[in-house]
Amino acid sequence: MYRSNTCGELRISDVKKQVTLAGWVQTVRKFGAITFVDLRDRYGITQLLFGEELNAQLDAQPLGREFVLQATGIVSERSNKNPNMPTGDVEISVQSFKILNKSAIPPFTIQDDTDGGDDLRMKYRFLDLRRNAVKKNLELRYAVNRSARNYLHENNFMDIETPFLIKSTPEGARDFVVPSRMNPGQFYALPQSPQTFKQLLMVSGYDRYYQIVKCFRDEDLRADRQPEFTQIDCEMAFVEQEDILNMFESLIKRIFKDVKHIDYTEKVERMTWEDAMWQYGNDKPDIRFGMQIANLKSAFLKGGRIQATGELINGAGFGVFDNAETVLAIAAPGCGDYTRKQTDELTEWVKRPQIGMQGLVYIKCNADGTFKSSVDKFYPEEKLKAIAAAAGAKPGDLVLILAGREERTRKATSELRLEMGKKLGFRKDDEFKLLWVMDFPLFEYAEEENRWVARHHPFTSPKPDHISVMIDNNPLIENADKYLEHPYSNIKANAYDMVLNGNEIGGGSIRIYQRELQEKMFAALGMSEEEALHKFGFLLGAFEYGAPPHGGIAFGFDRLCSILGGSESIRDFIAFPKNNSGRDVMLDAPSTIDDKQFEELQIKLNLKG
Amino acid sequence: MYRSNTCGELRISDVKKQVTLAGWVQTVRKFGAITFVDLRDRYGITQLLFGEELNAQLDAQPLGREFVLQATGIVSERSNKNPNMPTGDVEISVQSFKILNKSAIPPFTIQDDTDGGDDLRMKYRFLDLRRNAVKKNLELRYAVNRSARNYLHENNFMDIETPFLIKSTPEGARDFVVPSRMNPGQFYALPQSPQTFKQLLMVSGYDRYYQIVKCFRDEDLRADRQPEFTQIDCEMAFVEQEDILNMFESLIKRIFKDVKHIDYTEKVERMTWEDAMWQYGNDKPDIRFGMQIANLKSAFLKGGRIQATGELINGAGFGVFDNAETVLAIAAPGCGDYTRKQTDELTEWVKRPQIGMQGLVYIKCNADGTFKSSVDKFYPEEKLKAIAAAAGAKPGDLVLILAGREERTRKATSELRLEMGKKLGFRKDDEFKLLWVMDFPLFEYAEEENRWVARHHPFTSPKPDHISVMIDNNPLIENADKYLEHPYSNIKANAYDMVLNGNEIGGGSIRIYQRELQEKMFAALGMSEEEALHKFGFLLGAFEYGAPPHGGIAFGFDRLCSILGGSESIRDFIAFPKNNSGRDVMLDAPSTIDDKQFEELQIKLNLKG
Repeated sequence: MYRSNTCGELRISDVKKQVTLAGWVQTVRKFGAITFVDLRDRYGITQLLFGEELNAQLDAQPLGREFVLQATGIVSERSNKNPNMPTGDVEISVQSFKILNKSAIPPFTIQDDTDGGDDLRMKYRFLDLRRNAVKKNLELRYAVNRSARNYLHENNFMDIETPFLIKSTPEGARDFVVPSRMNPGQFYALPQSPQTFKQLLMVSGYDRYYQIVKCFRDEDLRADRQPEFTQIDCEMAFVEQEDILNMFESLIKRIFKDVKHIDYTEKVERMTWEDAMWQYGNDKPDIRFGMQIANLKSAFLKGGRIQATGELINGAGFGVFDNAETVLAIAAPGCGDYTRKQTDELTEWVKRPQIGMQGLVYIKCNADGTFKSSVDKFYPEEKLKAIAAAAGAKPGDLVLILAGREERTRKATSELRLEMGKKLGFRKDDEFKLLWVMDFPLFEYAEEENRWVARHHPFTSPKPDHISVMIDNNPLIENADKYLEHPYSNIKANAYDMVLNGNEIGGGSIRIYQRELQEKMFAALGMSEEEALHKFGFLLGAFEYGAPPHGGIAFGFDRLCSILGGSESIRDFIAFPKNNSGRDVMLDAPSTIDDKQFEELQIKLNLKG
Repeated sequence: MYRSNTCGELRISDVKKQVTLAGWVQTVRKFGAITFVDLRDRYGITQLLFGEELNAQLDAQPLGREFVLQATGIVSERSNKNPNMPTGDVEISVQSFKILNKSAIPPFTIQDDTDGGDDLRMKYRFLDLRRNAVKKNLELRYAVNRSARNYLHENNFMDIETPFLIKSTPEGARDFVVPSRMNPGQFYALPQSPQTFKQLLMVSGYDRYYQIVKCFRDEDLRADRQPEFTQIDCEMAFVEQEDILNMFESLIKRIFKDVKHIDYTEKVERMTWEDAMWQYGNDKPDIRFGMQIANLKSAFLKGGRIQATGELINGAGFGVFDNAETVLAIAAPGCGDYTRKQTDELTEWVKRPQIGMQGLVYIKCNADGTFKSSVDKFYPEEKLKAIAAAAGAKPGDLVLILAGREERTRKATSELRLEMGKKLGFRKDDEFKLLWVMDFPLFEYAEEENRWVARHHPFTSPKPDHISVMIDNNPLIENADKYLEHPYSNIKANAYDMVLNGNEIGGGSIRIYQRELQEKMFAALGMSEEEALHKFGFLLGAFEYGAPPHGGIAFGFDRLCSILGGSESIRDFIAFPKNNSGRDVMLDAPSTIDDKQFEELQIKLNLKG
């Protein structure tokens, strides 16, 4: 061992002990004949004192930043203690030292507020990982991993590894594929999730399964997606939805407790998908704050059945509202005194291409009970008052109203709500609020192909009451215009998402376990019997031999960690992430391969122009 | 929840409770008006008693093997108890039941001694997994996983995930590659191990890393290899070889304790590679028994320096021995009374193509102190006595002698020793004997290319004393015939294998952490500077910025589990294994992919003839 102690553990009680430390040189400070060195390792920083007698040696072998140094000496009490460091009471009076390895000058400083840009830090990820900020993230990640495993173990779950080289069944996302040398012309796929395997394990009788496992999706990467990502993947047999919700909200609470030392004792709230869409404009509401959406006018909600007629706003001669499919309002608390500049800024904000609205209507609810709006010429004060009341505004609040096509307007209002929540300090990193969103539509309508697609995945069961609707009706959509009237459009899934602070951290469902129902599902998705057998014959086969009722959930491990760590970026919580082009810039991967590899795999490139 | 209890937990103390169980029908036994059903789940089997009043219902819905059944009833004391089952004192007097799912008749019986052949059981792996024998294996696997994680956690190791989509650097084995759609013409590789990443983590200061992680090698599969396999992968910084050996023999001892309830208190034996080859004929000796090899004549040992001149056997006029490069002997205890038939069988055994020897010489050491051999006409009794003494034979033993080319003879003698050990009952499944094999040659000589190859991998450091030999000499082999005289042939690696009962269960090394030495290594392997930079530039770069001394080990998790489980086959310990052609016969993978997938990936097939 190159050390007797770490750089994080020596205390005043260790004074007079002889110790050997090894680590990296954080700083070198020379004061005349003596030199102070801060030595850093994973566990902390300890100050080394090189006295006069070592001066000549230090001159002969000067220390630089990030040199790897081994030093032996006596623990001494410091004259000027540093109360901000656990080791701040002591220093090591160095007796001898050895440079274990030198370092070139790092391309950026190894500090919390580094001077390195994103690209540089990714290229030198091995140096970026030395920074305390990144180390804390990986430590948190490991703590979440450990906590989840302990909880699941205590609850009789078994970690069972499922294969990575599987079969390509491109349903939702695109598969990564792997050419098979031993089976020329054939390919494996990397799993998008272990979904069918965990279901087979239920059929096999392993009634509580889990895995913390890498999954793969070949999708065009948005800012915060990775081609490989990690799931906490779980499945249970002989359970109903209620059992799953209880088991896994306790898992997340346990993680809060173990990792963040937070007692999340309250029951996790539950909300139907319809309510979430209606009141928050999206299916993963941030319920750390209210500001719910008032539906002043809303013709329909895809997959839902709610209507709002618009009697408060129609017929006043304001064409924007009269002609809009949907008009939605939120009340921003205490913003009634916004200046013209501030409301103009909000208007510009909703007109940005990412939001895409034409404009913004506001009503200021003055403290004195009067109202002032950007549509005063259309709506008398009484009307404004009624609209403000519908939006739940109080004196001093600012009502913000968006109008336009249903889907875009709802999305925009949701974004505006989140933006205002952020502005107003309602979205605190250290406040955590869980929510179950439930009763999703089982199907979405795919216009181009005039067929149904599974909203969750093709293995999700309808609600028990809706199974017969699915079995008893033909999935074919005869009249595309009236797809909303097809019985399938009304079927709800026995599915649930767990939402944390406005982020979906997990999702799952009770699964289909009857062959007939599963076949009906494949048919509804436009799969021929032959295709279904080719792709999922093993699962349909398994359902013939005594499949138990079962269900499960998968948590996005990267995302969960980033939220617990108070960050927006999952990349900060992955040791070696890829960039937005799916590249590992440190490795310079992907890269070309040898001719010999092409030959052995019996494939060749077929590059487009 | 579909059940109040599992099928494994009810005891006599539960009598009179009303319970609900759910599980699979193992057997149905009708006795007149009553029916007994054994209901099975992951936790055990409980007997259900259907009385007369349920007869009509049972007739209407007859139960079959593997039906999924839910039954509610009262726990009752059995009249004829079954002491072989933990639940054998009780049965459930069923009040109501529900068939949750039917089952077709399984293609083989779900029992320990199933009637299903290997292929059938692989195709219906989801049914095979129901068998107790397979379940026990997966439970053992999880217990090993859990034990290893606990030990490593307690010793400050951090589980850090490394990427699966990396760069192809085909050194040893063949990479599986993954075409990148977003980077047309380029490929990722699946990792053969996280080797370079764990080394980067050491450079980053995470001084104790571990992962239980899938690795991939596209090799032609022997009986007991899988294209994807699992490693317990570990690395430590600021350590020397001794630290690693201590840390990881304790890991394995902890697993013995947790999983097998074995206190392995003795120090793990250590043996140099030379001694292992010399005394046991291979580098992973089974030291549960002696029967060490006597080197009667042995010109050299590749990478070693030992010689035996052959004075005991030469010049007696026996051409086989006189002309042989190598003559090796073992003494089989208590086999001196082998019949002619038995020695003939052994001769046939060594002549099999897998062993490939021309014949076998034996010396019977009679209990009365006389000797009888198959070469009596060449060697007088005095000589036989001396040879037997050299082989360590006692009266009553049988000396077996093989002669021929060095490598083949050594291998054959090693196989013969293992075979005799097995015959004689020296290789018990429930006896465990660990061994460290150390001081391997750093290089092997590749005749075709007249260059060195890394015996372990290119990141293994030479023994500290041998570093200067490597730095100070040109790796080029000028005279191929005399490669054994090149200084590099004598360099020993700072590497170690852990051997359990004659199987390598883990291997590792102290790594190179100096750029200069790593460059020298790449050069020795015939890599140009350019190629080294292209493939491993990131690692060479990392070594410039303060790389600490480090080393590690990786255990073959599948193999470790199979040995602990007393099985020869790793496949029995993998939930969804592949066959010898790398196929998953249950999924029918690999398989063809769609034209659209080819188009998006911009590759096409290039099948040979």
